[in-house]
Amino acid sequence: MGMPKSVNRPEPLLRVLKATSRSAARPTDAETTAALAHKYRTLRGASLQLVDHLSPEDQCIQSMADSSPIKWHLAHTTWFFETLVLKAHLPGYRDFDPRFGYLFNSYYEALGSRHARPQRGMLTRPSLAEVNAYREHVDRAAHSMLDRGSLSSEVNWLIELGLNHEQQHQELMLTDIKHAFWLNPLRPAVRMPGCGRSEASKAPTSPMTWQRSLGGVRQIGHHGNAFAFDNETPRHAVLLQPFSLASRLVTNAEYVDFIRDGGYRDPRWWLSDGWGCVQSQGWTAPLYWEVVDEGRVGGRASAPGGRIDDYRIFTLDGMRDPDPDQAVTHLSYYEASAFASWAGARLPTEFEWEAAAESWSGVEPICADAWQWTRSSYDPYPGYKPWAGLAGEYNGKFMVGQQVLRGGSFATPSGHLRITYRNFFPPGARWQFSGLRLARDA
Amino acid sequence: MGMPKSVNRPEPLLRVLKATSRSAARPTDAETTAALAHKYRTLRGASLQLVDHLSPEDQCIQSMADSSPIKWHLAHTTWFFETLVLKAHLPGYRDFDPRFGYLFNSYYEALGSRHARPQRGMLTRPSLAEVNAYREHVDRAAHSMLDRGSLSSEVNWLIELGLNHEQQHQELMLTDIKHAFWLNPLRPAVRMPGCGRSEASKAPTSPMTWQRSLGGVRQIGHHGNAFAFDNETPRHAVLLQPFSLASRLVTNAEYVDFIRDGGYRDPRWWLSDGWGCVQSQGWTAPLYWEVVDEGRVGGRASAPGGRIDDYRIFTLDGMRDPDPDQAVTHLSYYEASAFASWAGARLPTEFEWEAAAESWSGVEPICADAWQWTRSSYDPYPGYKPWAGLAGEYNGKFMVGQQVLRGGSFATPSGHLRITYRNFFPPGARWQFSGLRLARDA
Amino acid sequence: MGMPKSVNRPEPLLRVLKATSRSAARPTDAETTAALAHKYRTLRGASLQLVDHLSPEDQCIQSMADSSPIKWHLAHTTWFFETLVLKAHLPGYRDFDPRFGYLFNSYYEALGSRHARPQRGMLTRPSLAEVNAYREHVDRAAHSMLDRGSLSSEVNWLIELGLNHEQQHQELMLTDIKHAFWLNPLRPAVRMPGCGRSEASKAPTSPMTWQRSLGGVRQIGHHGNAFAFDNETPRHAVLLQPFSLASRLVTNAEYVDFIRDGGYRDPRWWLSDGWGCVQSQGWTAPLYWEVVDEGRVGGRASAPGGRIDDYRIFTLDGMRDPDPDQAVTHLSYYEASAFASWAGARLPTEFEWEAAAESWSGVEPICADAWQWTRSSYDPYPGYKPWAGLAGEYNGKFMVGQQVLRGGSFATPSGHLRITYRNFFPPGARWQFSGLRLARDA
Amino acid sequence: MGMPKSVNRPEPLLRVLKATSRSAARPTDAETTAALAHKYRTLRGASLQLVDHLSPEDQCIQSMADSSPIKWHLAHTTWFFETLVLKAHLPGYRDFDPRFGYLFNSYYEALGSRHARPQRGMLTRPSLAEVNAYREHVDRAAHSMLDRGSLSSEVNWLIELGLNHEQQHQELMLTDIKHAFWLNPLRPAVRMPGCGRSEASKAPTSPMTWQRSLGGVRQIGHHGNAFAFDNETPRHAVLLQPFSLASRLVTNAEYVDFIRDGGYRDPRWWLSDGWGCVQSQGWTAPLYWEVVDEGRVGGRASAPGGRIDDYRIFTLDGMRDPDPDQAVTHLSYYEASAFASWAGARLPTEFEWEAAAESWSGVEPICADAWQWTRSSYDPYPGYKPWAGLAGEYNGKFMVGQQVLRGGSFATPSGHLRITYRNFFPPGARWQFSGLRLARDA
Repeated sequence: MGMPKSVNRPEPLLRVLKATSRSAARPTDAETTAALAHKYRTLRGASLQLVDHLSPEDQCIQSMADSSPIKWHLAHTTWFFETLVLKAHLPGYRDFDPRFGYLFNSYYEALGSRHARPQRGMLTRPSLAEVNAYREHVDRAAHSMLDRGSLSSEVNWLIELGLNHEQQHQELMLTDIKHAFWLNPLRPAVRMPGCGRSEASKAPTSPMTWQRSLGGVRQIGHHGNAFAFDNETPRHAVLLQPFSLASRLVTNAEYVDFIRDGGYRDPRWWLSDGWGCVQSQGWTAPLYWEVVDEGRVGGRASAPGGRIDDYRIFTLDGMRDPDPDQAVTHLSYYEASAFASWAGARLPTEFEWEAAAESWSGVEPICADAWQWTRSSYDPYPGYKPWAGLAGEYNGKFMVGQQVLRGGSFATPSGHLRITYRNFFPPGARWQFSGLRLARDA
Repeated sequence: MGMPKSVNRPEPLLRVLKATSRSAARPTDAETTAALAHKYRTLRGASLQLVDHLSPEDQCIQSMADSSPIKWHLAHTTWFFETLVLKAHLPGYRDFDPRFGYLFNSYYEALGSRHARPQRGMLTRPSLAEVNAYREHVDRAAHSMLDRGSLSSEVNWLIELGLNHEQQHQELMLTDIKHAFWLNPLRPAVRMPGCGRSEASKAPTSPMTWQRSLGGVRQIGHHGNAFAFDNETPRHAVLLQPFSLASRLVTNAEYVDFIRDGGYRDPRWWLSDGWGCVQSQGWTAPLYWEVVDEGRVGGRASAPGGRIDDYRIFTLDGMRDPDPDQAVTHLSYYEASAFASWAGARLPTEFEWEAAAESWSGVEPICADAWQWTRSSYDPYPGYKPWAGLAGEYNGKFMVGQQVLRGGSFATPSGHLRITYRNFFPPGARWQFSGLRLARDA
Repeated sequence: MGMPKSVNRPEPLLRVLKATSRSAARPTDAETTAALAHKYRTLRGASLQLVDHLSPEDQCIQSMADSSPIKWHLAHTTWFFETLVLKAHLPGYRDFDPRFGYLFNSYYEALGSRHARPQRGMLTRPSLAEVNAYREHVDRAAHSMLDRGSLSSEVNWLIELGLNHEQQHQELMLTDIKHAFWLNPLRPAVRMPGCGRSEASKAPTSPMTWQRSLGGVRQIGHHGNAFAFDNETPRHAVLLQPFSLASRLVTNAEYVDFIRDGGYRDPRWWLSDGWGCVQSQGWTAPLYWEVVDEGRVGGRASAPGGRIDDYRIFTLDGMRDPDPDQAVTHLSYYEASAFASWAGARLPTEFEWEAAAESWSGVEPICADAWQWTRSSYDPYPGYKPWAGLAGEYNGKFMVGQQVLRGGSFATPSGHLRITYRNFFPPGARWQFSGLRLARDA
Repeated sequence: MGMPKSVNRPEPLLRVLKATSRSAARPTDAETTAALAHKYRTLRGASLQLVDHLSPEDQCIQSMADSSPIKWHLAHTTWFFETLVLKAHLPGYRDFDPRFGYLFNSYYEALGSRHARPQRGMLTRPSLAEVNAYREHVDRAAHSMLDRGSLSSEVNWLIELGLNHEQQHQELMLTDIKHAFWLNPLRPAVRMPGCGRSEASKAPTSPMTWQRSLGGVRQIGHHGNAFAFDNETPRHAVLLQPFSLASRLVTNAEYVDFIRDGGYRDPRWWLSDGWGCVQSQGWTAPLYWEVVDEGRVGGRASAPGGRIDDYRIFTLDGMRDPDPDQAVTHLSYYEASAFASWAGARLPTEFEWEAAAESWSGVEPICADAWQWTRSSYDPYPGYKPWAGLAGEYNGKFMVGQQVLRGGSFATPSGHLRITYRNFFPPGARWQFSGLRLARDA
């Protein structure tokens, strides 16, 4: 079958994004079920293909409390379907293993206690083979449900949620394994044979221009019948001042200018907490940038010079020279904010970003290259209500202490993208494919 | 002279607040200087009166990295005038001690390195007497400047900034010494003789009612000629949905209902980070609430029952029975948020709060009883520009990872209050006089 | 070939131990080489057999900074032969992979920097298959050396050292994998098929009696031509007071008496640092003892009662009922010391233990059941000189902050035991098979 | 009265030390009581004189968990007399304040819970004046007891214990306030006016020679009727090999040679845990050695050169140039051990040290200049029994994880010294006046 198109094909992103906000005649439950039956097979298979060249050892390790083993991702997404769909809505469904609820629950308090997050790497048992058997068991049951014909709109929705959840974990699997491999002094490549795109591929960079928006009252948030997360709703009006948004993301070459200008040694540019990180953690460049003595195993040195040739960058394909024209990634919010200050600009709010995206044309897609830190804290929209039931723990309880990112990265399954999508991470997180797009008051 | 009225007199707060937004004929520089000369004497004296019954030992200790010794507050506010006003604008001014710049700089990176914050309690030298001499030295120079007649509008403004800064530290002195005394098993009282008000005094509580607002486009932020911090500007329009705001703050009695209903044991009500705090720090009630075995020194027990009689509360006057009708304080944002969820309501945004305050009448003052956590992260207003120069580090660099509080507390110098004022603390902070006012969608 | 006898056969230990101190005609270098050729094959094979039923995932994980992954043990012991024997003494030997020196050096500073200890679990690459190929590469070279006939006494000695080193890691592999599996809520069994002995097997317990020694001047430390570690030398005289030593180790049943009597709640019995551990780490029983609610996955409860039936014990064979007559193990030095105080006795010094072992007869072997904490700190013997060269880092640099254990456990390869052997661990370590034997002044 | 001679007079130490082991006719209880009455007044007064030039603020602060505020020392030593002597043996004695037992108990578990050690600096109340009143209250009662004539031998002994305890705290007061002052960027001097000796005074250094001892069976530990701690008993025989001991301590000049030779950068000389400290804590010289940029407040730089002129040393008299001939102090055990290895020597055992001290003549006193780290772990002597009752917690429960120091320092009250005295600290402790004397096998 090859790599599923939905994961890796470089589709014209703008078209996809626009499509998501297009209103359409609502499909029947039966039509939805049929579409889901196809999507389920494609997406669940894509998860396995992403990692099928990784060894059982590779899939077992956990490199920090914030990340998870690949095997855990594979089991957790399966547990999600089993718990929300099969056990609740498939009469006669039998648990694959009743203990898995304890092992593979991520953070759902309503389901009781669970395996401690920082200990996920200790789960050599169940083995990868057993987890694969678990996936097959659940998939068989899901297929039987889906192939039976029309499901209720509630069940259809739960399956759609599970598939979007699986897509989110597809991206996390790539960022988590990248971090784990980086802790290996051999700096191994994940090597993704058959992938049409790699982390490094990139179209030539156009000069950056400022795209002006007039502001005014704009509608923000998801509307229409397509799936969206609860944190994208309700759609509501906001009042924006005029602003300008950069036509493309900040590149590696531009970021090196900031380093060379002493950006990491000058507190003027930094938020107070960010400057604290620079000092306590010794940041001198984005995560994964190294000044490597090639003759040395395990060698990392802190960057002296600040010329782009001084650096090597760890990627999913192993160590690579940085591409000057590629969007800089693996920045914390603090670094994105400091760069913007140094550049005499600022980060956009998530509302500016979304409003601009609606009217965007003639320039590079607004998503695509990297997740883009916004100046907006991850707060609830006016009138926000978490989903009912277990899914209510999906988003709302994380709405403090995090910043919103908009856009998407090469690692984001392309069908997963839309301009109302709100990604969020704590301001110090650097292991995502996170960069920035500049903004300024118009 | 007695306790200065500006610090403690129970003025009709609403009137004061309203007054701040009233536009008036702009005074001349000379008129401003004359007013400042009076205000300077009053306010600087008030700082000393607040703590004049505390011993040199009391004024030296630091109870946690987030707090500071009283003596350090007294010296730092003095250093602020010396650095921004006297050294920059009084020709011939001589430093009291050139080493004090290192000791009493709080966080101004532009001035170079400084004494480590968690080590402020080690500063037994300079002694309290030397710090008082420092204050007198600086005050003499400031008086000579102010009494000379008209100062430039820039210098007038810097003095006004210094006085507002001093007022902020007056409140912090009370919250910091309260925390330090609480770590003493003897639970001493700060005892504020001569203060017209104490932490415990309170008018009878009216029943809570919901005050409805229609929403729409509202102007937010400071305007007019009176002093305001940069974070209150620029004044700008926001679009609000209809909402309702509670007529008064949540009381101790109401909060005990939450405890008794198992609020601290039920993750449903909590933000994820908040639930983490409950578990890792063993929270079972607000800070300073204790179930005391009176026969035991240093004894604290975790709350069993959840009846208000089970508790004693540590106050600036020592241990006291909680007043059921008083506004609950010493809550973290997490606790305020959890209470609101449990109550079927939510916290207001800072915009809702400010918009309501403008049209508030016939109910208790919207400020006054306690700082009120809002649902709003501490983000910059559209078009926000930090002040130029050193003062630029005052507010802007803290705009991440914090929540906005609105209102004020009994410890806030009353002249310091206005409805556009934005206080901010990290979501886990509990040592301020912080409570909550409920809101809901209308 | 089956399980090698040297690892698991329940030999009459006393005979073995006695034999090691018997002086004999010194063998020629050629005879030694021939014996080593046999021993090398047997022992190196035994390491693999110990773990051949573990999956690559099982062999990759690291459960704490003090332990190491199985795969790392397998590679490190191989690196030890490669570095000390082959690269130094086999002309023309080619490194298997020059990067392995960085990865698999444990703590030899003279060889430069190395992979950080707490990150050993991140080494999914090299894979287990590659590590096995590494072992084969090194073994082929070693075989070719050994089979060539007579090696110099220096090289013979280095090979002997490498084999003793390998045996030490065989024991650590069992204790490390046990700890890692215990962190898995499924509590898997390591399952050692083909092993003649299991952790649980045990001969019936005889009543404890006191074996009296008269003291006086006694010779302590290794003598003769057989291999010993540098820390066992030089043999020297010590002066002992009369003392008595218990005829057998403290049993599970006896230890439960201590628990039931409130041993973990009474500071009288504890060293100050030990009481600190009891409180900060919540110790209520030896490591791996659990009061399990069998219906619950991942469930551990702290022991309420103190009856032996209340407990289940995690073993290499999974969860088991404790055998009342078996020697209690997985005690820290603090617990061993507290038990002895409670019992009105004390721990022996390592000198008393060794002196008694020389004259021991008619009672159970003095080694065998568990490592036995002694009251002796791990200090150098008078006249102690670390080995020359790289091996000098083997023992001497650890001589502070540790306690000596004597004896051996079921996990100790039996040929590895001798009465002059000095094992050592920090006083809080509990993951070894460590118990105690009582002593008292005679 | 002036500074009491027993604290500071530079007596011929050797004579004093020898005297302590001289057996004499046992005095009667009445004679003992009379002597104690005098000693009590002298010693208790000396404690106050040591600190009477320190402000209440100086006496309140605590610089680390291992140290205590001066005021706490003054209260704790008083509590010791109150608890062990007055409440137990003076009928009708009334507590000064029943809450003080909670505040000023150091580590006596048998007396129940107590104020947390790291929070001792929070005790601004009771004030210094109240603590002084506490001392007077207890002293009055003690005087009335002592002046009454003959006390029982048990009570005499308890008073003697209390006075030795007070002397130990006199030394700790100096080391603790030194550490606290060092954390003040102003580097204030404690200034001890009236003290006959200062930290810096020193007789000219003689060349170092080796004093040879033949070893053999030697008696170790206290004997005779004079007071000694339980950890110095029982006197017992040990068997020593021949050894040599250096005639004097290592000097600052000699230690600088070690630094210049790269001693802090070469792992060969270090115990493994010591090397860990060098790296994690950035040690490049003894504690309190600084390469100061004199024009900078609060400035510390790490030592570049390793010439003695590069350094300034913080002392009780403020910053001073190091005296090349003075004994180096403020070393950890790790540094003392590393220096000895570098010098081709070793540290003595405590038994060698004591055996040599008995036969010492013609050289400088063996004590006096600094506490001397020994190679001996702090283990119990054969037959050791802790004292009965509360005093049983004085020494025995600390016998793990510490190293023995012998000798004494300028800060040790001279009447407190004897050659059987065993001081002990963890191997990483550097805030005591701790140096080293070299030893080697003869």
